[in-house]
Amino acid sequence: MKKKDNFLPRIEVINIGSELLFNRVNTDITLISRILREKSFKVSKCTIVGDNKEELKETLKKSLENSDVIILTGGLGPTFDDITREAVSEVLNRKLNFSEEIWKKIEERFLKRGVKPLEMHKKQAYIIEGAKIIENNVGTAPGMIIEKEGKMIIALPGPPAELEPMMEECLHEIEKKYKKEEWKTFIFTIAGLSESSVEEKIRDLIEKYNYLEWTILAHPTLIEILITSKKEFLKDIEKIKDEFVKRFGDYYLGENPPPLPQILGSILKEKKLKLAIAESCTGGLASKLITDIPGSSEYFQGGFITYSNVLKKKILKVKKTTLRKYGAVSKEVAIEMAKGAKKYGKADVSLSFTGIAGPTGGSKEKPVGLVWIGVGLPKNRYFAEKFLFSGNRHRIRERAVYTGFDILRRELLRLK
Amino acid sequence: MKKKDNFLPRIEVINIGSELLFNRVNTDITLISRILREKSFKVSKCTIVGDNKEELKETLKKSLENSDVIILTGGLGPTFDDITREAVSEVLNRKLNFSEEIWKKIEERFLKRGVKPLEMHKKQAYIIEGAKIIENNVGTAPGMIIEKEGKMIIALPGPPAELEPMMEECLHEIEKKYKKEEWKTFIFTIAGLSESSVEEKIRDLIEKYNYLEWTILAHPTLIEILITSKKEFLKDIEKIKDEFVKRFGDYYLGENPPPLPQILGSILKEKKLKLAIAESCTGGLASKLITDIPGSSEYFQGGFITYSNVLKKKILKVKKTTLRKYGAVSKEVAIEMAKGAKKYGKADVSLSFTGIAGPTGGSKEKPVGLVWIGVGLPKNRYFAEKFLFSGNRHRIRERAVYTGFDILRRELLRLK
Repeated sequence: MKKKDNFLPRIEVINIGSELLFNRVNTDITLISRILREKSFKVSKCTIVGDNKEELKETLKKSLENSDVIILTGGLGPTFDDITREAVSEVLNRKLNFSEEIWKKIEERFLKRGVKPLEMHKKQAYIIEGAKIIENNVGTAPGMIIEKEGKMIIALPGPPAELEPMMEECLHEIEKKYKKEEWKTFIFTIAGLSESSVEEKIRDLIEKYNYLEWTILAHPTLIEILITSKKEFLKDIEKIKDEFVKRFGDYYLGENPPPLPQILGSILKEKKLKLAIAESCTGGLASKLITDIPGSSEYFQGGFITYSNVLKKKILKVKKTTLRKYGAVSKEVAIEMAKGAKKYGKADVSLSFTGIAGPTGGSKEKPVGLVWIGVGLPKNRYFAEKFLFSGNRHRIRERAVYTGFDILRRELLRLK
Repeated sequence: MKKKDNFLPRIEVINIGSELLFNRVNTDITLISRILREKSFKVSKCTIVGDNKEELKETLKKSLENSDVIILTGGLGPTFDDITREAVSEVLNRKLNFSEEIWKKIEERFLKRGVKPLEMHKKQAYIIEGAKIIENNVGTAPGMIIEKEGKMIIALPGPPAELEPMMEECLHEIEKKYKKEEWKTFIFTIAGLSESSVEEKIRDLIEKYNYLEWTILAHPTLIEILITSKKEFLKDIEKIKDEFVKRFGDYYLGENPPPLPQILGSILKEKKLKLAIAESCTGGLASKLITDIPGSSEYFQGGFITYSNVLKKKILKVKKTTLRKYGAVSKEVAIEMAKGAKKYGKADVSLSFTGIAGPTGGSKEKPVGLVWIGVGLPKNRYFAEKFLFSGNRHRIRERAVYTGFDILRRELLRLK
């Protein structure tokens, strides 16, 4: 494998678990790349294999040929289909040894929960010869780092709550071994523009600075521009940053910003404003994303999921005549919902969403994807904007919510 | 690669896109496996590669050695880092030909949106020699199926709304080529038990029927048992099913059931009952999951996200004295929230969630993970149950919500 960015150590991730090939969404890879990115490391490849030892062994062998660091997650549990320990031991030709010390810790953890460990849990006390142990303070399976022939093989449990702190610890080990002074990755985020329009706007920069590594990542409502640079070109990054500010203005979210709901939360907190949300088509998604952020109770009063018209009337006091005259998906109802949310939610600012998320319920005048977003601001200022989002039900709801967050963000920044 | 289940065609998925190695969650793989599962096909391996042609070529070559069907998603866009067409063309040694017909369709699609296509969009009209075209009725990039030396290589766009219908079409092609009469996969779902306790309960069955292929998949609140069987053993599946019903009782959700929110929705619809939800710690997640299901407006009135105590009092009429005496996270408040949701949500049944999702806010008496779930039923019946969930904020909220859905499901089944 030719390494394009040969100043970076090559990192591969292998996620083990048949459920990941089936119907469980793989969040481990996003968690790992987020942590690696703290130190400008990145993942070059990720493979999911089922609970199949031969398959895992084959994959691991191939990864060892190509990569410097291999991070395995999952398959460290006590059941018969947890095969990571055995597979790694066989591929690296290192013995598995039973550790009395780790077994004691596992027993203690079980007893603390008032449960007696089963015989099968002993499996989790087997450690690969020569491995450095990464302690698990949340679950029972310890992690392991094995070094062999200049490579680093890391095996960690799959549950995110266990993986996260253990991966942070491994990051230090990776950093120790693979120095990072030579290079750095920068992430710049743009809100509210399409991938191709962002690319159009910076094509000349990509050509001018073609000795930097450029990647454009498109998200449903955000575009990220990643630039990896050797130390000697850092001054160019400053110039590029200035260009972004100039070219994107309000749309430029900054360098490596937190997720949009968190940016919005910080602005609300800073301005000491409380938010309430009224949701129809988005059905709770906006409130869910706001409350994903720990500490959101400081600025989030609550939300009203007025999915039925009866609740729009009863709870938010949307007028019967407005609903009859304009329909639930209209500018007028969006504004009355934003008013009701602000008033009955005891808030300073509000957002409202009413639309047709599909797949059915659309008409020629009001097609699937049509969403009115209402905004309530201090001093009795209200307005609503109309959008036509493409994609399936999930994507339409997601786009609506992030668009609403971004509109409110810009309005709040302009508030005196 | 040794095939354990050599009566199945081996299918691999390759998802292309640097954002999937970065911070975008990969939902394509779950979508593809769900569709394949309709016909008992399954994915043996999934690889994510970034927008790097050499990397993709290497991965595709390896997959061609091992597998019968290779499904690629993503990298069919118009930008410089969309490299799937070129990579597949080079690996298969087939030319890329410009198709006037497809270009016309792309132009039409743009014009319908009132946008003029750019020169770079011409890239999407290049087709691999000999490919069967899969039309894209949602976006611009067509899909392709290429057959070579008995293998099937499928290239589809990444956005789920485009991928889903196109993948359904490909399923027919896969089915045509790889007959399925020989074998079948059954999925049985258990709610509310841990993976190890399910395994304990069926260990003897796994041993007795060891000529069937068993897989146990653990989800945060569900366990799935997959059994793949040759046609000649189908009578054994019936016997196993009977054992599941006997051994798991109320916990047995059935064979290949829809997601829990949809099961709950069907029961509500059947019993002509309307649901309202009051959420504190879950912050909208329960309502979001209920409204993920199209048509949920038939049984879902709405929700109250009373994240702050002031809204618990103002909107749900939770008594000030109850909040003061027992605290917001208590049996009493959970019950008053369920009462308020039912009454002010104009509903027949209700659910409420109040707890400490963390990471902060816990105490010795009320630790992070403590959640009270309240249930409101017809005839003024109310109760609340206490849970201590492990995991991070996300997992605690998810477990709380699914547990609530499952409690309500069982209660509704018992209603006369």
